[in-house]
Amino acid sequence: MGRAPGAETDDAFSDRPRSTGPARLADVALAAGVSVATVSNVLNWPGKVGAATTERVRQAMEALDYVPHEGAARLRRGSSRSIGLVLPDVANAFYAHMARGAADAAFDHRYTLILCDSADDAEREEGYLAMLAEQRAAGAVVAPLGADTARLLRLRRRGVRLAVVDRAEPTTQSCSVSVDDVRGGRLAVEHLLALGHRDIALVNGALSIRQCADRYEGARQAVAHRPDVRLRQVNVDTMDAASGRAATAGLSGAAAPTAVFGTNDQLAIGVTQALLGGGRRVPDDVAVVGYGDLEIAPYGPVPLTTVAQPVYELGRAAVELMLDEIDQGDRHVHRAKVFAPELVVRQSAPAPR
Amino acid sequence: MGRAPGAETDDAFSDRPRSTGPARLADVALAAGVSVATVSNVLNWPGKVGAATTERVRQAMEALDYVPHEGAARLRRGSSRSIGLVLPDVANAFYAHMARGAADAAFDHRYTLILCDSADDAEREEGYLAMLAEQRAAGAVVAPLGADTARLLRLRRRGVRLAVVDRAEPTTQSCSVSVDDVRGGRLAVEHLLALGHRDIALVNGALSIRQCADRYEGARQAVAHRPDVRLRQVNVDTMDAASGRAATAGLSGAAAPTAVFGTNDQLAIGVTQALLGGGRRVPDDVAVVGYGDLEIAPYGPVPLTTVAQPVYELGRAAVELMLDEIDQGDRHVHRAKVFAPELVVRQSAPAPR
Repeated sequence: MGRAPGAETDDAFSDRPRSTGPARLADVALAAGVSVATVSNVLNWPGKVGAATTERVRQAMEALDYVPHEGAARLRRGSSRSIGLVLPDVANAFYAHMARGAADAAFDHRYTLILCDSADDAEREEGYLAMLAEQRAAGAVVAPLGADTARLLRLRRRGVRLAVVDRAEPTTQSCSVSVDDVRGGRLAVEHLLALGHRDIALVNGALSIRQCADRYEGARQAVAHRPDVRLRQVNVDTMDAASGRAATAGLSGAAAPTAVFGTNDQLAIGVTQALLGGGRRVPDDVAVVGYGDLEIAPYGPVPLTTVAQPVYELGRAAVELMLDEIDQGDRHVHRAKVFAPELVVRQSAPAPR
Repeated sequence: MGRAPGAETDDAFSDRPRSTGPARLADVALAAGVSVATVSNVLNWPGKVGAATTERVRQAMEALDYVPHEGAARLRRGSSRSIGLVLPDVANAFYAHMARGAADAAFDHRYTLILCDSADDAEREEGYLAMLAEQRAAGAVVAPLGADTARLLRLRRRGVRLAVVDRAEPTTQSCSVSVDDVRGGRLAVEHLLALGHRDIALVNGALSIRQCADRYEGARQAVAHRPDVRLRQVNVDTMDAASGRAATAGLSGAAAPTAVFGTNDQLAIGVTQALLGGGRRVPDDVAVVGYGDLEIAPYGPVPLTTVAQPVYELGRAAVELMLDEIDQGDRHVHRAKVFAPELVVRQSAPAPR
């Protein structure tokens, strides 16, 4: 088929560049005994080429492990089959699980996910947004750092489609995916009420943090029509175990609460450690509920009852909304998807009898 | 500068496509009052254009938020400024920290990192490798699933450069980055010996797992010339807290060891839970050492002494070796970088007095 058989051809063939690099269009054409234009047509205009020739070209591609050059197709399309995932710290379990959900959704649609770890740094977040624009990413899913929407607007201006994750956003600008933290706070305190507790302490971060304010609001709603219940709040600067232990010192003595709701699992485990260290039993003397249900909750001194957030689902849903926007173009309608958290009951505040 | 001033021009200007999408070369040329060819020269052949014109074009680019089209440059170069990171599960803290290190290194060199989460699935890993080849990734850092090297060879054949992370590899094929787990096992047991323990139990996974075999080998080396020391091993199928608890049941009674080395932190915390549950004190009756030092180690029932792996550094070093290969081309020499783990002393096996 246009090729001379025999040893000479084989030698020439083995000297081709493809033996030290990936196969090229010309290699496929040679192997299939067709012109380069025909191979190109098989790739780009399948209807133009007969079935037998198409099959021969496909077999040659497979034999040579030929990979079509995605870059060329991308230039025609104007954007790549990749989506950016911009988050503050992938080593944080919350974002790691979110990344897993996002990666799964992207893979299902044969999109790649570009991991943009801003390291909690606004300048670096900017740098990533520029890189995404340069590489003509089809879109970006952003877990915004703090409440600064100026940067989000800037990314939109760069022509990269945007979906926001872990924050409810007005649907005029973009899709968003978030968790109902008010409901989460309500679930935690309602569980303690069902266990008979009437004196509950909230160990919480600063109310300037949206999540902390929402979880407090939920707790407040749970006791709104319960004048028999005392709800107090201790606010800490850093939401870690040490702060939980320190906060517990102020909650001992005769007026100690019978239950503590720590608004993340680190705080709740710190509270548990301090209670046990002070000779009190959990949950017999004091019940403890946390918030998060990531790695550490089952490993604490007492397996922790806590509010689980569908973090994996957040990442998955955000990518799926973005893919809808990419696929549907002008027909796409922005949506704000809100997930409900769930209570996971373990030993530190068991199920009511 | 070749543009008529006034309201009409402004209207015409605001009607341009760039108002609903990113600015294009023609928009920059119009705004700077130069030809499209001149703008292209400023981008690609800076020496060709005078300083004043260059400055005018740069200002126009900035005013319009113009982003050069990376795709075109990529086509010329043959590969993109992106690197794949192929790992079995980014939601696992070990890989999440590795991803963070890899992302930091890539960002420092203005490369993007494509997150390829194989979900512990060989077929999916294959799918990602194909996508990386299609998108002409400049290279891939792979944390291989199991010991199957056939897939690694296949990726190399696709023309994607490869570095292996979390496994020592012969340097004939690629760079690799790993942790010396033999040394880690030795560190753990040497610490227990220094505390005076002479009866030590290893709670370990299957010896067919490279890491488990290496950690056992290190433990064995530590007691090699100590006929006064008894080292026993209990192997479990699943390396989690429940298995740690179950294994501890077989280590009680009169012949119980005075120290336990759990070869991951989950096992060690399970052991600690079971010991405390059985009324024994940690570390007073039994000392416990773990391995990993990720999220859970400080949060256990007793803060855990454990062997820390430089996981972040693994990810960072693997990307840096890959970037060296990309930059140096034929001058690059493959290296096998091995990191030393370190003992982190906490309460479950404190420092010797």
